[in-house]
Amino acid sequence: MAVERRTLIHDGPGGRFEGVFAWDDALAGARPGVLVIPNILGQKEEDNAKAEALAALGYAAFACDVNGQGKRTQRSPGSSRYMDEMNADRALLRDRLAASLAALKAQPEVDASRTAAIGFCFGGKCVLDMARSGLDVLGGVSFHGVYDRPDYDNVSPMTAKLLICHGRDDPLGKPETVVSLGQELTDSGADWRIHAYGHAGHAFTDHSMKGSTTPGVAYEERADRRSWQAMQNFLAELFA
Amino acid sequence: MAVERRTLIHDGPGGRFEGVFAWDDALAGARPGVLVIPNILGQKEEDNAKAEALAALGYAAFACDVNGQGKRTQRSPGSSRYMDEMNADRALLRDRLAASLAALKAQPEVDASRTAAIGFCFGGKCVLDMARSGLDVLGGVSFHGVYDRPDYDNVSPMTAKLLICHGRDDPLGKPETVVSLGQELTDSGADWRIHAYGHAGHAFTDHSMKGSTTPGVAYEERADRRSWQAMQNFLAELFA
Repeated sequence: MAVERRTLIHDGPGGRFEGVFAWDDALAGARPGVLVIPNILGQKEEDNAKAEALAALGYAAFACDVNGQGKRTQRSPGSSRYMDEMNADRALLRDRLAASLAALKAQPEVDASRTAAIGFCFGGKCVLDMARSGLDVLGGVSFHGVYDRPDYDNVSPMTAKLLICHGRDDPLGKPETVVSLGQELTDSGADWRIHAYGHAGHAFTDHSMKGSTTPGVAYEERADRRSWQAMQNFLAELFA
Repeated sequence: MAVERRTLIHDGPGGRFEGVFAWDDALAGARPGVLVIPNILGQKEEDNAKAEALAALGYAAFACDVNGQGKRTQRSPGSSRYMDEMNADRALLRDRLAASLAALKAQPEVDASRTAAIGFCFGGKCVLDMARSGLDVLGGVSFHGVYDRPDYDNVSPMTAKLLICHGRDDPLGKPETVVSLGQELTDSGADWRIHAYGHAGHAFTDHSMKGSTTPGVAYEERADRRSWQAMQNFLAELFA
C-alpha cells in the first residue's frame, strides 16, 4: 500500500483554486471519494494529512480550497479575512463548494456516485451548507463546525446524511445553538446525529492548538480520537 | 464458540433477585463484565438477549433484576408499579444496583476489576445513578434513559466514563433536559459523551415497540444499530 498525492488546480467561481488529492495506489478501480474542507486558515498541510488518512482507509480524498489559490492565513490578527468573505456571500461559498466537489468527482480514482464531505471549524459549516443546498454528496461530517444558517432556504428533504461532532464547551456553538441545529435538521428531514463531547471545545481535532490557553478553544485528544472513530463508522455505513 | 446462560439468584436490599448471566464458554479466563439493566418492565427475555449479544462480543454479562424475584410487568396499565417504587427511593435503588453489580463480579468468568453497565429507559437512569453514586464500574452506557437526578449528591469526581445515547424526539428527555444532563456531568468531572439521534424517540432499541403509535416512543432501526455500534466502540476503549 502506498498513499499518493497530487496537486489539483481547477477553476471555479471567482478564480482558480488549489488543493491536494490523496489515494492509495495499491487499490484498483474507483472508490468512494471524500472532500476535506479546511478551517479558517484555508488549505494547508494538516488538511492534506487528513486526506491521506482517509486514503489509508480506502477512500480517495481531496483537501480542497474555497478561498482561492494562494489565499491562506496564519493564526494571527486577520486570520479570518478569507473566511469573512465567504461568510458574507454564502451563495458564492456554495458554488465554490460545488466546484470543489466537481474536481473530486473528476478524478479517475473516484466513484462519482459515492462521495461525502468532512470539514473542520468553518469547514464544518461548509459541510452543512452542502447538505442545506443539496449538493450531490451522500453525506457529511462536521467537526467543531459553525451552525449559523445561510440566507437561502434548505432543500427539502435534505438527503445528505449528517454526523455532527461537537465539543460541549465550544464558545462558537453553545448548547442552545446545537439544539437549534437539531431542530433545523429534523425539520429538513435529514438523517442526522449529533455527538457532543464533554470537556472538549472548539478546534478539538486541531493538533496545532495543543496547549491553547484560549477558553473553550483547544485540541482535545479524546474527542479527536472518538470523533475520528465515529466518522469511520459513519462512512462505512454510508458507502456500504 | 457457544454462548451459555445461567440463572443467578442472589439476596439484596429488600429481598431476593433473579437475573440471567451469559458468557462464551469458548473463551478462557476472566473477562470484562457488563451489567445489563432492564427497562420499566423489569427482567425479561429481551434483556437476556442483550446479555447474550455482549457475550458474543467477548464479555460476560448479567441481565439483572432490581425489582425483586418475580416482579415483572407487561405493557399495560400498572406497568410502572415496580419502577415507581424505585423512583421513590433512589438510595434503595442504588443499593440494589450495588447488589446486582456484586453478583456480576462474583462470577468466575468475570474480571471484577473491569466492569461496566448498560441500561435501557429506566435502566439508563440506573446507569447514571451508578456513576452518580460512585459504584465501582469503569463506565456505563445509557440507551434512551431518564435524566432526573436522585436526592443524594453526586460523587466528585465522577470517575465512571459515560456514553448517553438519546433519541432527539424522546418526550421523556427534551433537549433542555439533555443540556442539563451535560452540564451535570461536566460539573461532576465525568468523561462523557452524548449521542443524539434525529427522528428517534424513547425506546428506540426496543423491538417490542415496532410500529408503536405513541408519539415519540417507538423502535427506530437506525438509532438502534448506531447506538449499539457506539457502545461497542465505547467498551473497546474502556477495557483496552
